[in-house]
Amino acid sequence: MTPSSRPDRPRLRRTAGDRRAQLVQIGLELLPTTPVQELTIDEVARRAGISRSLLFHYFATKRDYYTAVTRAAADLLLEHLLPEPGTSTEQQITGMLDRYVGWVETFPQSHLAFVRGAAGGDPWVSDVYEDTRSRLLAVALTALDLPDDALRRQLVLAWFAFTEDLVGQWVLDPTMARAELVELLRAVLDRLLQVPPVARR
Amino acid sequence: MTPSSRPDRPRLRRTAGDRRAQLVQIGLELLPTTPVQELTIDEVARRAGISRSLLFHYFATKRDYYTAVTRAAADLLLEHLLPEPGTSTEQQITGMLDRYVGWVETFPQSHLAFVRGAAGGDPWVSDVYEDTRSRLLAVALTALDLPDDALRRQLVLAWFAFTEDLVGQWVLDPTMARAELVELLRAVLDRLLQVPPVARR
Repeated sequence: MTPSSRPDRPRLRRTAGDRRAQLVQIGLELLPTTPVQELTIDEVARRAGISRSLLFHYFATKRDYYTAVTRAAADLLLEHLLPEPGTSTEQQITGMLDRYVGWVETFPQSHLAFVRGAAGGDPWVSDVYEDTRSRLLAVALTALDLPDDALRRQLVLAWFAFTEDLVGQWVLDPTMARAELVELLRAVLDRLLQVPPVARR
Repeated sequence: MTPSSRPDRPRLRRTAGDRRAQLVQIGLELLPTTPVQELTIDEVARRAGISRSLLFHYFATKRDYYTAVTRAAADLLLEHLLPEPGTSTEQQITGMLDRYVGWVETFPQSHLAFVRGAAGGDPWVSDVYEDTRSRLLAVALTALDLPDDALRRQLVLAWFAFTEDLVGQWVLDPTMARAELVELLRAVLDRLLQVPPVARR
């Protein structure tokens, strides 16, 4: 991440798009230590070297700003997880799992806030979360070379819930070696994919 | 469930405890079709044959009433899931799974509201949910004859998350036979319990 948020940097003319991107970037830089819902507008504005009221010129409400940061974080996660094209299914899935664990290790609080906020009362988090989940589902089904049917979707989504929960607990209290964790996640997926792909309905 | 909520029933003298229990019972009877957060106080009071304001004599706030109904539902679930003593581990676990699926089949909306409300912004739901989860965890560890260590707790809790998610999806769209679902949940648990029980820390 670039130090673009230094307040002592000479003020250049920025377009509104640049400024919005800069403010989102500041939010992203704070995420490793601060869940998005706890970012303070004053702190973000201070780091951008602008006033609080100018920030609200770019994002009409605090919630708009949080949504933009959440969406940017989800995009980064997705980009980070995308498998390397041309590698084997095995490498793609193990690579994605390894990078997912790495992401949760880097952003444990944000991960928790994202997962919890998603399921709960915050529509702005849950929209981004559901959207990210269904994009990840499509990526996983493709990497696994699975048919996109209701059964596969249910199994992969339930495996996401399992993975999210176990990795979320594990980063706070690593009860097994990291490689064992990744192997276990993979083994459970393998077991789920043994469900025969017959047409059931 | 008894038809204790008929408004045309003769009014008997009730203790405050009886009345509270009756009001909670009415909420429980409505749960199969109504998530707890959507129960209306007017409807509950009408069914009890009392005024809205009298209901608030027994439960200071709507939230207090919802919490009492949620806690009663969670207690019923736990009681319903408890394994039969003296049966084999296999029978205990399969029986619990079978009864859990049955419970979600009966209360699909409430299950969803419970799971989602729990993770999200409603502290009154999440307290009951966390408490239920840890009581269920203790029941499961005992039934499985597992040591109560951090690794086992993580694995069983992650398996709960998986089970909750898959069963919640399945009741809305049954993509496999019920027996296959139960077998799959069981198989994933078996795979998780293959993690060697060595001391890791």
